[in-house]
Amino acid sequence: MVDILHKVGIKASTDEVYKAMATREGLAGWWTTNTKGEGKVGSVIDFRFSANGAEIGSAEMKVLELAPGKQVMWQVVGGPAEWIGTRIAFELKQEGEYCIVLFKHQGWKEPVEFMHHCSTKWAIFMMSLKSLVETGKGAPSPDDIKIDNWN
Amino acid sequence: MVDILHKVGIKASTDEVYKAMATREGLAGWWTTNTKGEGKVGSVIDFRFSANGAEIGSAEMKVLELAPGKQVMWQVVGGPAEWIGTRIAFELKQEGEYCIVLFKHQGWKEPVEFMHHCSTKWAIFMMSLKSLVETGKGAPSPDDIKIDNWN
Repeated sequence: MVDILHKVGIKASTDEVYKAMATREGLAGWWTTNTKGEGKVGSVIDFRFSANGAEIGSAEMKVLELAPGKQVMWQVVGGPAEWIGTRIAFELKQEGEYCIVLFKHQGWKEPVEFMHHCSTKWAIFMMSLKSLVETGKGAPSPDDIKIDNWN
Repeated sequence: MVDILHKVGIKASTDEVYKAMATREGLAGWWTTNTKGEGKVGSVIDFRFSANGAEIGSAEMKVLELAPGKQVMWQVVGGPAEWIGTRIAFELKQEGEYCIVLFKHQGWKEPVEFMHHCSTKWAIFMMSLKSLVETGKGAPSPDDIKIDNWN
């Protein structure tokens, strides 16, 4: 079992950052504009990604935990085969003026090439989250920064 | 043992990308302007990082392997305690117009918070490498993109 780990520091309160990952509007502002579903424990949020006008992927996340200002955790119940059953956690803590986000995409079976892609792409999306909260503007799909010949 | 993994695709040949990680000038163009030493197997390259005019870190890399157009591998022999003994590999392959870089920072003892930071920061530097090769301009330290309240 291998994990993708990231950290960003966002000049904001943990409550502000929490909203960006616990509400549909927040998620649509940094991950993908095509986000459907509510952020309630037990519910499923549907994310769809596109590039050049065509859908290139999707993910369905079952919300496992919503701890305001502290943590959001999802289980992947739909999407890429390698993602099914993995968990995604966002841990929040305040350090002075900054909200520190520790991101974990846990439980990959093998360190396949797609995992390398997703690791870099998650970093890009964490910077999109930082930008959304600090400036009001993120870079969600389909206007996300491309990292390779696919996406 | 846990690893940091990343992937970028760079619109260039593997030879062009190889130069950016096998020469002092290349490394200074995307990782840190303060790079000293030659890229020869067995030699040590010295990297120093700064922010706001002060040095904030360094790394000494022993070159283990230089396979033109294919792979560069280093062993960390100086720098942050968590890095000592870890290995950094850049694997290259051509896919059409793109050189695919698979990056691995292998052999961390524990998934400490600093590892989360380094994972995100490596993604930022891989994008700096991509920019250097594609546009002639990277974003090496001290002009690297800051990700948190430290660097």
